[in-house]
Amino acid sequence: MPKPIAKIGVNGYGVIGKRVADAITLQDDMKLVGISDIIADYRIKTAIEKGYLVFASAPEKIAEMKRSGVEVAGSLEDLLKKVDLIIDCTPAGIGAKNKPLYEKAGVKAIFQGGEKHAIVQASFVAQCNYEEALGKQFVRVVSCNTTGICRSVGAIHKKYGVKKVRIVLVRRSGDPWESKAGPINAIVPEVHIPSHQGPDAQTVLHDLNIVTAACKVPTTISHAHFVMLEPRRKLSREDLIKAFTDAPRIRLFKAADGFDGTQAIIEYHRDIGRPRSDVWELPIWEESIATTSDEAYWIMQVHQEAIVVPENVDAVRAMLELETSPNKSIAKTNHALGLVK
Amino acid sequence: MPKPIAKIGVNGYGVIGKRVADAITLQDDMKLVGISDIIADYRIKTAIEKGYLVFASAPEKIAEMKRSGVEVAGSLEDLLKKVDLIIDCTPAGIGAKNKPLYEKAGVKAIFQGGEKHAIVQASFVAQCNYEEALGKQFVRVVSCNTTGICRSVGAIHKKYGVKKVRIVLVRRSGDPWESKAGPINAIVPEVHIPSHQGPDAQTVLHDLNIVTAACKVPTTISHAHFVMLEPRRKLSREDLIKAFTDAPRIRLFKAADGFDGTQAIIEYHRDIGRPRSDVWELPIWEESIATTSDEAYWIMQVHQEAIVVPENVDAVRAMLELETSPNKSIAKTNHALGLVK
Amino acid sequence: MPKPIAKIGVNGYGVIGKRVADAITLQDDMKLVGISDIIADYRIKTAIEKGYLVFASAPEKIAEMKRSGVEVAGSLEDLLKKVDLIIDCTPAGIGAKNKPLYEKAGVKAIFQGGEKHAIVQASFVAQCNYEEALGKQFVRVVSCNTTGICRSVGAIHKKYGVKKVRIVLVRRSGDPWESKAGPINAIVPEVHIPSHQGPDAQTVLHDLNIVTAACKVPTTISHAHFVMLEPRRKLSREDLIKAFTDAPRIRLFKAADGFDGTQAIIEYHRDIGRPRSDVWELPIWEESIATTSDEAYWIMQVHQEAIVVPENVDAVRAMLELETSPNKSIAKTNHALGLVK
Amino acid sequence: MPKPIAKIGVNGYGVIGKRVADAITLQDDMKLVGISDIIADYRIKTAIEKGYLVFASAPEKIAEMKRSGVEVAGSLEDLLKKVDLIIDCTPAGIGAKNKPLYEKAGVKAIFQGGEKHAIVQASFVAQCNYEEALGKQFVRVVSCNTTGICRSVGAIHKKYGVKKVRIVLVRRSGDPWESKAGPINAIVPEVHIPSHQGPDAQTVLHDLNIVTAACKVPTTISHAHFVMLEPRRKLSREDLIKAFTDAPRIRLFKAADGFDGTQAIIEYHRDIGRPRSDVWELPIWEESIATTSDEAYWIMQVHQEAIVVPENVDAVRAMLELETSPNKSIAKTNHALGLVK
Repeated sequence: MPKPIAKIGVNGYGVIGKRVADAITLQDDMKLVGISDIIADYRIKTAIEKGYLVFASAPEKIAEMKRSGVEVAGSLEDLLKKVDLIIDCTPAGIGAKNKPLYEKAGVKAIFQGGEKHAIVQASFVAQCNYEEALGKQFVRVVSCNTTGICRSVGAIHKKYGVKKVRIVLVRRSGDPWESKAGPINAIVPEVHIPSHQGPDAQTVLHDLNIVTAACKVPTTISHAHFVMLEPRRKLSREDLIKAFTDAPRIRLFKAADGFDGTQAIIEYHRDIGRPRSDVWELPIWEESIATTSDEAYWIMQVHQEAIVVPENVDAVRAMLELETSPNKSIAKTNHALGLVK
Repeated sequence: MPKPIAKIGVNGYGVIGKRVADAITLQDDMKLVGISDIIADYRIKTAIEKGYLVFASAPEKIAEMKRSGVEVAGSLEDLLKKVDLIIDCTPAGIGAKNKPLYEKAGVKAIFQGGEKHAIVQASFVAQCNYEEALGKQFVRVVSCNTTGICRSVGAIHKKYGVKKVRIVLVRRSGDPWESKAGPINAIVPEVHIPSHQGPDAQTVLHDLNIVTAACKVPTTISHAHFVMLEPRRKLSREDLIKAFTDAPRIRLFKAADGFDGTQAIIEYHRDIGRPRSDVWELPIWEESIATTSDEAYWIMQVHQEAIVVPENVDAVRAMLELETSPNKSIAKTNHALGLVK
Repeated sequence: MPKPIAKIGVNGYGVIGKRVADAITLQDDMKLVGISDIIADYRIKTAIEKGYLVFASAPEKIAEMKRSGVEVAGSLEDLLKKVDLIIDCTPAGIGAKNKPLYEKAGVKAIFQGGEKHAIVQASFVAQCNYEEALGKQFVRVVSCNTTGICRSVGAIHKKYGVKKVRIVLVRRSGDPWESKAGPINAIVPEVHIPSHQGPDAQTVLHDLNIVTAACKVPTTISHAHFVMLEPRRKLSREDLIKAFTDAPRIRLFKAADGFDGTQAIIEYHRDIGRPRSDVWELPIWEESIATTSDEAYWIMQVHQEAIVVPENVDAVRAMLELETSPNKSIAKTNHALGLVK
Repeated sequence: MPKPIAKIGVNGYGVIGKRVADAITLQDDMKLVGISDIIADYRIKTAIEKGYLVFASAPEKIAEMKRSGVEVAGSLEDLLKKVDLIIDCTPAGIGAKNKPLYEKAGVKAIFQGGEKHAIVQASFVAQCNYEEALGKQFVRVVSCNTTGICRSVGAIHKKYGVKKVRIVLVRRSGDPWESKAGPINAIVPEVHIPSHQGPDAQTVLHDLNIVTAACKVPTTISHAHFVMLEPRRKLSREDLIKAFTDAPRIRLFKAADGFDGTQAIIEYHRDIGRPRSDVWELPIWEESIATTSDEAYWIMQVHQEAIVVPENVDAVRAMLELETSPNKSIAKTNHALGLVK
């Protein structure tokens, strides 16, 4: 007997939501029932052009949405009645407010990294702790930065053990679609050290000794992380390269091949035809991978718009127990989206 | 008897060349024989991943290309022997130096807007002067800015006549792939008025009375043009909208729909799945279209990477007389690429 | 008998207010009684370091200001009791709300360009309509962009007459001190043409036939204007240069001297020791000045932080009738600040 | 008998040279004989406006300089005959080429951080190793970034000892005067870790265990450093603050006071009237100073245009033995320039 197809909704059709919706439609064990939002502009109209059913996340917005030409299929509550699981991609903090709705409707829900760990049963990065999400009702896919940290540091930690890791995050200040986010000409530090990304990584890699510091800079296309890691045992550069090569969703890029900055890696993904030029993998600059007698270093790029997209798909599979093996789910998602590994 | 497929080469695999190569492969009356360049980095390797044959534009670069892993199919001269027409997408001024090569090889050649009008028999914008390129050996597809001007101003000029048009061009300073182009925080005017775009438009719209001024600003994703046009007869806003709607490859976008800047229109094209988020059409902000008793205004966006791509395809068709009707060629190109009109 | 010294207050110690306060202290016929604001950060503390008395524009902010170490000399009402004239430099729209306070206190008030013309008796640019402000109670110093337009176009209009002028304004998107204003990578047009700057210029040059269009771009240091002007009679390039040279507060800069963009002209003013690198004059690129048989062109830079500063000083002098001759007031202000002309 | 006044020349009138020249003129024990360069634009003309004698660094440029209106006082060789010491502020690598000239002329010379340590007898940061420069002929003032590191890490190292320090440098990509430097929208990492700044700091702090990594970002106004330091003994936050407060030319700024990014600290220096808004001190964000049981953290800003200026003055004093006490020289320079400490 064929497995039933999981019915999925996406609440919040912004930077993450629209990508997750598209990714769901590519899975053969899932079906996108519809998306829900409160906006009435080109973004939601594009959803309709794609054939997605559009629901209204706030009843009082329905009139405005209709007036602007959006065909509204119903309310968020209506959508919740039709799905097994809702992926909440609303802005930070709204997810927590939505949780009672999901509880009332009896649907499982995935939240994004803007929500607190406390509101879920597990924070999630597929290759690190897939098992923790198995069968759970509420799971949080961690933020883009935390996902990048967990994928790479997690790969070293699992294989060799990490004594301590220090990371400085140079963050983008706005997304490409935005016209108002700045700064235009400044570096804006997060003045409290350690910054929040370290503790956040510990929600996935529970025993990791990590310190992070961060700033934001005038770019829209990616974050860059500078990693300084003390391993539990001496590592060679080849050990690092092998660990990254073996791990899923990490990809090495050489500056010598022209990948001299975040913009070149994005351009490559434009060239190979990635939807929206998305970089679902974690790029690491191969030349930056270095070791000393007691330390390891690398620089990596986190595409803030895209890296969590495959994680959301895997989280669905774990929570609905469509697949109990992390590797099988990851392989399935990768195949559907077109990742090599 | 079926028409033979035109054999096309692309010399110069940069911003324009790589897009034109992809566009050629989508046409059913053309075949991409190969591309030629001198680079050895990720850009050319991506061409190989796509299955394009790679030739070396300079013999002395072959060794370096091979050393870096590029499989070289031969020299540019070898490529020229196999094609009916070469599309030269090399940097400004190199095209002129290449022309004798093409003459010697007896192939037709398209040059880009960086070359001078004097080296060709016709400068070309499909919807303006397709006929001028019919059967010609050397044709120049004009620059992105000139293409945008010819499409829009040309549509008004053809229908109603233009007494005089003034345009201020606010230009992007670098392309998305670049890591070195600036400025970071400045407006850099072209201090000589009129700037060169006006005379350049006259190579296509020969009798147009046009004045342009220009500056460059710190953005990578598009130019914006501010048009102030004196028509030969009184026009209403509706006349303008109709002219733009009737013309091919012009598309209206409403700021009220969230298209508040160049970045939003690019984002839309990411969302609808355009390769590399390319905007082949000329977007005009609908709200900006305005008329007074003796003048018309509008603001338009020129995607510097993409707008000339369909023009190159049409130029091939005209020069090789695969199609003598401009409208049929435009429709054929649009259909193959996925433009609505 | 020596003239009494005019007692001046400044309400709003932001980008404009802090500069106007400094400028007032340099005049021998004026005295800065104090400044007023609601902020409690470094900006206001710097005012105290300069020895300025600080008043609180909102009573409810006094506690917070004191808590953060700001010595508060009293309320705005207290300040109003001590001054002959208040210069309102509060954010756009707040000035209008403050006007009843000023009326009640019986003090004259200058507003800035963010306020509407309707709330004052005259909108003001010193070299254009000084006389209109003589003895008035409420005057508005127009915005930086309008000031730049009035100085340059006004000089031509007064001398030769202007049939029609078209200007495209390329605007900075944020000020240098800001960390939040964007965009980072976009051109954002004002989609309604004509934009508001044209009508605003008419509040000073009442019979000017002017059309403007505008956009904002990712830079913080100046606007640039592209002017296309139809004069009432044929002008030569020399006529334009002479008109600009004769007019006060316009200065020509040559790109050939290294002034290739807005950033170079700012750098020059850093080099010559201008406070805050302020450009009180209107720079025009000399090479951009051009004429045809029926039109004149130029490109100018408007330093949004500084250009209105001398205008505010002159407006004080006109409103309090400290000086009835515009030229004498302008010369006096220029001398005190250090402008050459 | 009064000490003779030291005769100083500056070769290279760019970002650093023009500031050093101004600083020399403010010292009562030094005299600026003249400056030398090869440029003919506004920058050199401004030097003339300031009354500086201008020499030509390359004989073949004299004609061009004169043609453009620059009064040339002679050749660099002529200048060298008149000075006791030349401060070489030419672009990186040119200094090394100039060294034989200085040797031949028998003058002492200071080089900047773009030159290699190997060409000098001492690399210099006043508060770290003033004594090493005493009486030397060739000394190098280290780069802006290295100066910032030596001032702050050096202060901790001297007082408490540093076991290891890790620093990530987020660098500005161009200076404010530049119109061509980019990127516009990218983070460009230095892919080789450790980056060169660590070894460079060791030319001053010889036994320091330091690792650095770096990237550049689209801003023009400062670098920011993220410091993670393992001290030889447990330190409290108060220990750090005291060390920074006691050290010269380090200044704490609170984000809570509105100093939320590099741009705010620059704005403050505009507001207090610093020439060119220069930040000669090393700003550290007070909130960022933190300690754990075995580590210390802080974030600091390095104003790339200005931080080395007082160092050059002190280096003159050490090399010519005008003053043998570092503290006295530092105090003298600070007093002349207007630094508090």
